[in-house]
Amino acid sequence: MFEPQVYQNRRARLRQALPGAAILIPGHGEAPRNYAANTYEFRQHSTFLYLAGHALPDLVLLLLPDGEELLFGTPATIDDIVWTGPVPSLGELAAAAGVARAEPLERLPERLAGLSNVSYPRPFRAEQVLALARWLRKAPDAVRPDASAALMSALAELRLCKEPREVEQIERALAASADMYDAAIGAMAPGAREQDVVAAMTGAALFHGCAQSFIPIVSRRGEVLHNHAYGNTLAEGDLLLVDSGAETAEGYASDITRTFPVGGRFTDRQRAIYEVVLAGQRDAIAACAPGVGFADVHLTAARTMAAGLKELGLLRGDVAEAVAAGAHALFFPHGLGHLLGLDVHDMEDYGDLAGYEPGTARSTQFGLGFLRMNRRLRPGMVFTVEPGIYFIPALIRQWQEQGHLAQFIDYDRALTYLDFGGVRIEDDVLVTDDGCRVLGARPIPKTVADVEAACARP
Amino acid sequence: MFEPQVYQNRRARLRQALPGAAILIPGHGEAPRNYAANTYEFRQHSTFLYLAGHALPDLVLLLLPDGEELLFGTPATIDDIVWTGPVPSLGELAAAAGVARAEPLERLPERLAGLSNVSYPRPFRAEQVLALARWLRKAPDAVRPDASAALMSALAELRLCKEPREVEQIERALAASADMYDAAIGAMAPGAREQDVVAAMTGAALFHGCAQSFIPIVSRRGEVLHNHAYGNTLAEGDLLLVDSGAETAEGYASDITRTFPVGGRFTDRQRAIYEVVLAGQRDAIAACAPGVGFADVHLTAARTMAAGLKELGLLRGDVAEAVAAGAHALFFPHGLGHLLGLDVHDMEDYGDLAGYEPGTARSTQFGLGFLRMNRRLRPGMVFTVEPGIYFIPALIRQWQEQGHLAQFIDYDRALTYLDFGGVRIEDDVLVTDDGCRVLGARPIPKTVADVEAACARP
Repeated sequence: MFEPQVYQNRRARLRQALPGAAILIPGHGEAPRNYAANTYEFRQHSTFLYLAGHALPDLVLLLLPDGEELLFGTPATIDDIVWTGPVPSLGELAAAAGVARAEPLERLPERLAGLSNVSYPRPFRAEQVLALARWLRKAPDAVRPDASAALMSALAELRLCKEPREVEQIERALAASADMYDAAIGAMAPGAREQDVVAAMTGAALFHGCAQSFIPIVSRRGEVLHNHAYGNTLAEGDLLLVDSGAETAEGYASDITRTFPVGGRFTDRQRAIYEVVLAGQRDAIAACAPGVGFADVHLTAARTMAAGLKELGLLRGDVAEAVAAGAHALFFPHGLGHLLGLDVHDMEDYGDLAGYEPGTARSTQFGLGFLRMNRRLRPGMVFTVEPGIYFIPALIRQWQEQGHLAQFIDYDRALTYLDFGGVRIEDDVLVTDDGCRVLGARPIPKTVADVEAACARP
Repeated sequence: MFEPQVYQNRRARLRQALPGAAILIPGHGEAPRNYAANTYEFRQHSTFLYLAGHALPDLVLLLLPDGEELLFGTPATIDDIVWTGPVPSLGELAAAAGVARAEPLERLPERLAGLSNVSYPRPFRAEQVLALARWLRKAPDAVRPDASAALMSALAELRLCKEPREVEQIERALAASADMYDAAIGAMAPGAREQDVVAAMTGAALFHGCAQSFIPIVSRRGEVLHNHAYGNTLAEGDLLLVDSGAETAEGYASDITRTFPVGGRFTDRQRAIYEVVLAGQRDAIAACAPGVGFADVHLTAARTMAAGLKELGLLRGDVAEAVAAGAHALFFPHGLGHLLGLDVHDMEDYGDLAGYEPGTARSTQFGLGFLRMNRRLRPGMVFTVEPGIYFIPALIRQWQEQGHLAQFIDYDRALTYLDFGGVRIEDDVLVTDDGCRVLGARPIPKTVADVEAACARP
C-alpha cells in the first residue's frame, strides 16, 4: 500500500465533497468457493482500497460527520496466529492507513446507532447486503436502493483522474502483461490447446506477483466476446484472440487484447480485417485529448472501421450514415473502451455515475448502448481503447432475417465470413495535457509485421 | 459430467432416504470479485454437482414429494449469445442430467408455494441465503438455522463412499498434482521466490485443465499452517512446505503436501524431524482399514511422532500418557486429515454431519478438536493423511508461560527450534475391502532419499 498520507488526503477530499456526511465503507470478507473456509483469493473492495489501502478481510472504515475516522476489525486470537501466523494489530493497521482510531468490529453497530443518515456505496456482494442490513437495521431489499448516489458520484470524481502513483501501478501491471503476451506467443503453436496458453500466461502474471484482473479470454473463437472456455486445440490458420489483464498487489489493473495468427502468418482475409481494426484503434487513440467526449472517440473508430468494411464489400452506402444508423455494430457490437484503475472496468460498481457525465445516459442503440464510458476526457483519465470486428453467426442471421439495415449491409458477403471468428486490439491510454499516451514501457506486438515477427517459429 | 443415469441413480437413492420430502438444491450463481460483472472463476455448489452435474451458474434443482424432478434456469437471450456464444437450451441441460422437466427460474416461487416443507442444505454463500429467503418467504436470519440436517445427513451417507468413477476423478486430479510437484521442484532453487513456485505449479494445473482445489500453501515458513503469502525469497537450507491440490473439470479434488529442502539436501536437524513425520504418516496409513475409527488413526500418528520427538529430546515421559494429555499437539496442532471428494474438505458445508459419525462430536482438546473427521472407515471412503510437526513461536511461548504439560515437554529444547519452521507430508488414501491404498498412479517423491534425488540440481 501507499504511505498513510495518501489515504488521509483522499479521505479529506471526500469529506470536503460531502460535508457533514457519515460515510461507511465496508471492506470485503472472504468469498466462499465451495464451502465457507475454502475461499477464492481475497480481493478487497476497491473503494476501501482507495480510501484505506489494506487488502485484508473484514475491515470497515467509518468517517464521522465531525471528522473522526475509525477503522473496525477483529483482533486475532492465538488460534488465528497458529493458522495464519503473526498479524499486525488493529491499531497498527489503522496507523498504516493514517486512521486515528481502531475499534473492534462488534462496536460498529453502537457507533452507527446515533447517526441519522449513513452513506455507503452500492454493495455488489450479497454478504455486504446482509451486513449492511444488520448494521443499519434495514430490510435486505432496501440496502441497494438506499445506497448513496452522492457518495458514489463524489468517489467517482476523486478516482476519475489518476494520481501519478496510480499510473505507475497500472504501468507495473502492464509490465506483467508484456510478459504474459510473450508467454502466450511462446505457447500458441498449432496443436497446442487454448488452456496451454492460459497456463503460460497465468504463470507469467504470478511470476510478477500479480493476480489476473479478470478471467482471461483466450480463444480461437474470438467472435464470442466473453469466452471463458479453453477446450479448443489450435490449428494452423486460426486466429487466437487473447484478452487479459494483470492486477498489482495494490489492486491496479491492466487490460490488453491481441489477436494472433496461429502458425505465425495471417491469411490475406485475416490480414485485411486485422488492418481495419488496427486503423480503427489508431484513429481512436489519435482522437483522445482533453475536452473530447469518449462517445466521439468510439464513433471515430466506428467510422474508420466502417470505411474499411466498405472496402471489403461488407458494408455499403455512405459511411457516416451507416455508422449513424448503427450498421457497423453488426461487426463491432461493443463499446470502444472503459475506465481503468483499481478495477479493470474502473468503478463499474458505481454504475454509470462513474462512466457517464452527470446528467447523461446511455444510448439505446445496439452496440453504442454497450459503451461503458462517455466522459469528456480530462488529463489523468485512464481507459482502454479496444475496437474489434467479429462475425457472430447468430447475430448475422438474426439481422438478416429481420432485413435490418439491409441498405448498409451486404449480408451475402457477411455469410461468407461465418467461420472467420473475430479480431480485437486493445491498449491502455492515459490522457495527458495535450493528447494522450499509450501506457506500457515495453510495447506488445501490434502491427501485422510485428505480430508476425513475434509469432514466427524458429 | 457423467452420464444422465449417474445423476438419476443418485437422486433416486436420496429420495429413498427421505421419502415424501421436497428437496431444493440451488446451484451457485457467479461470485463477484470487485464488481458484479467481474467474477471469480465459477464454482458450482458441490451438492448440485453431485446430483445434477452441470457446472453452470443460476440453475436450481427441485425434487418433489411425488417423484417429479425439475431443473430451473434462465433461457439465453440474443445478447447473451453475442457475449458468451451459443449455449444449450434449458431442456438440453435437464436431459443431460436425466431430469425430466425444465422450467424458467421465475416459476420457482409458485412451484414452492404449494409445498408445506422444503428441505435444503445449509448455504454458505450470502447470495444463496438471500435467494432462499426470497423463494421460501423467510427472514434471511432464519435461512441457515432452518436448513435440513436430515437432508445433509442423507447426502453425507450417499457421498461418503466414492463410486469408482469418483475415485478415477480424484486420480486424475492427482495426475495434475504429480506434474505440479515436478514444476515446484523445478522452480525452487535458492534465490527463487515462493511466488515463482506458485507460478510454476499453477501453470501445471491449468495445463491439465484443472483449477486448484484450494489456494496453495507454498512457504518457507511451514509453521504457519494456512499461509497464503508468497513474498519470501528461498535460501539454501530452507525448508519449503508446499500444500496444494488440483480440481478436475467435474469438480473432484486432490490434496498433497510435501516439504522440500531448498538447495537439495536436508540438514541433519531437518532430516530428523522429517523422518519423524514420515514415520507418523507411514504408521497412520498402515492403520487405515474398514472398521477402524479415524480418531484412532490420528492418535496412531500422534504416538509415533511423540516417540520420535522424545528421542529428539523435545518430549519426555511416557509416550502414551503424553499423547493422551495432548502434549504432542504443541508440535502437531491439527487433525490428521479430512474427507476428500467433490470438495477438498469433502462436505465441509454439511458441518460435522459429514465428518463425524451420527451422535458423536468433536473433542474439546487442543489439536484433536481440529480433527475434521472421525468416521469409522468403510471401503470407498477417501481422505487425506497429513501429519506434521511445526515449531510455532507464539504457541510454544504461550504454553511455556502457562507451564502447560511441562512434565511432558522440554521447553528449553523446543526454544532452540524456533527458527525451524515446519514439516508436513500428505497423501490421499482410499479405504479398500481389506485395508487402504494411497491414490495416485505416479508417486510424488516422499522418502528422504527420493526427495533429495528429485531436488538435486544438475
